[in-house]
Amino acid sequence: MSVLLLGTVAQAGHAVLRDALGETVDLVHALATDPPGDLAAKFQDADVLVCPAYRADYPAAPNLKLLHAPNAGLDSIEFDALPEGVRVCNAFEHDVGIGEYVLSAMLKTVLDLDRTDRVFRKGDWSEAPRMGATPRSELSGQTVLCVGYGSIGQGVAVRAKAFGMKVDAVTRTPRDLEPRPDRMADFSRLGDLAADADFLVVACPLTEETEGLIGADVLARMKPTATVINVARGSIVDQKALYDALTAKRLGGAVLDTWYNYPAGEGDAVRPADYPFWEMDNVVMSPHNSGWTQGLIQRRFTLVADNIRRVLAGEPLINQVHPLP
Amino acid sequence: MSVLLLGTVAQAGHAVLRDALGETVDLVHALATDPPGDLAAKFQDADVLVCPAYRADYPAAPNLKLLHAPNAGLDSIEFDALPEGVRVCNAFEHDVGIGEYVLSAMLKTVLDLDRTDRVFRKGDWSEAPRMGATPRSELSGQTVLCVGYGSIGQGVAVRAKAFGMKVDAVTRTPRDLEPRPDRMADFSRLGDLAADADFLVVACPLTEETEGLIGADVLARMKPTATVINVARGSIVDQKALYDALTAKRLGGAVLDTWYNYPAGEGDAVRPADYPFWEMDNVVMSPHNSGWTQGLIQRRFTLVADNIRRVLAGEPLINQVHPLP
Repeated sequence: MSVLLLGTVAQAGHAVLRDALGETVDLVHALATDPPGDLAAKFQDADVLVCPAYRADYPAAPNLKLLHAPNAGLDSIEFDALPEGVRVCNAFEHDVGIGEYVLSAMLKTVLDLDRTDRVFRKGDWSEAPRMGATPRSELSGQTVLCVGYGSIGQGVAVRAKAFGMKVDAVTRTPRDLEPRPDRMADFSRLGDLAADADFLVVACPLTEETEGLIGADVLARMKPTATVINVARGSIVDQKALYDALTAKRLGGAVLDTWYNYPAGEGDAVRPADYPFWEMDNVVMSPHNSGWTQGLIQRRFTLVADNIRRVLAGEPLINQVHPLP
Repeated sequence: MSVLLLGTVAQAGHAVLRDALGETVDLVHALATDPPGDLAAKFQDADVLVCPAYRADYPAAPNLKLLHAPNAGLDSIEFDALPEGVRVCNAFEHDVGIGEYVLSAMLKTVLDLDRTDRVFRKGDWSEAPRMGATPRSELSGQTVLCVGYGSIGQGVAVRAKAFGMKVDAVTRTPRDLEPRPDRMADFSRLGDLAADADFLVVACPLTEETEGLIGADVLARMKPTATVINVARGSIVDQKALYDALTAKRLGGAVLDTWYNYPAGEGDAVRPADYPFWEMDNVVMSPHNSGWTQGLIQRRFTLVADNIRRVLAGEPLINQVHPLP
């Protein structure tokens, strides 16, 4: 059986797949930017494709049985272009890394350890209470609104509640989920809950319904001290509206991990947005790596390996998203 | 009734005390470095002294009924020097701020948002998974050892557990405390538990028993990747032993909020230790402000005000530590 790992994200799982599957499969590496002939030959043989994307212009893959996204988002998969009979699975497990990232980002708004260290290291005691220092604010008592309440929203909520924060959530289908938010509503109440939020965490899938969901109208209702944190997909937040709100200081800040433009490959230094967020001091930015941890790779590719074993054994797959079982 | 707020930490509570007590008391300000005559006059009148310290060389205070520490630690109070009949209370409420500080410090070891932001802001995508970036480690699954399991240790534990960390604790008297640590032991087992810790958080009072408790022997048993975090009192950790372990890279790092030397007053730029921790890149340092928050001041001085009211009303005091009621 030939398993084609397309792209660096899929290839990061090589060692976990090899450990789990032994020599029962061939693990083949490719990049979407490889010479077309090489790529076509590898697709020709592939029984399983591990890749976050599937595009109509990919080479023919007559043996393909499984497309396994090594990630959660399905927005880069052209389902209509998939060969007949191919099943699609995805993988989560990023709630740990992203939960840590979001809490780091929220803590940074009340407590800047790097800055304090720089000042005190020079021998300057001015931030000491005994020298009359101004006290900082606390995360405790502040409100975080999770837009989307799947594994990421819940991972943020578990941690935020331990800090004494209030947790609100909007979700497509409000239902009984743990931990129970203080308030849960459907997307129609997004503006109302955004008005009370100190932090708005974007943690929903990108769909037709959520594209541009955080637009000028929602941002206009937010507190001028509030922070937008986007760990989902760039275009759920309208980039012009966000840039305008940040420039006008109608919003406190933004922590952006997901973007509007991505490099096509090695050496492509494309800027991540059409507006210069990188020139702003009320923005913190990271290159879509909020969940990129060793634990993520271990957990995700253990699942991918299990699903490959299931294909071989003719067993039902875990996390099958297409066709819906 | 005259309430003497001695020092900037006590004076930070002025507005909260005024709000709570109205005009029933005089709030008088002084610094220990004031001219001796001025200070003596204010002590002469004081019914209540709000101050973290009491020293034998303080002026006579014949009317003093209550010494209220606006903090938890009692190590700066010379109890033998207190006038007959004076009661002493202290205040906690710093578990929120210190819990936030400790989690920030731990998160910083796995996720350096400031550095990532600096790199990506320049247009460098090299930390992106799609560009083959190395994944980071997670806080989840790591072990934190709380040395002391009072309000600070428990505050750290609540938060750390929400991150999926293992929590161990050593305490003078192991007993049933929430949240329940994975392992709890008395100080005799400190070395054993320190050997398993990724983070050792010093969160016990400074007493004869705990001075130098974290010495060369304990540090020698720790992992070379582990971090010592001291939010209690400097001298619970032997400074030479810590400096030597950090210099030899036998220890991963230290996050130090509490120190060995403090400035006597404004303009005194004394270095906080006898060894140059400020020259080391595996040390993060802050000037004893880990718990210094607006919420702390509100909560602590609400208690101080309540105790002053209780003195006036002849009611029992809250958090009385001397004489033990």
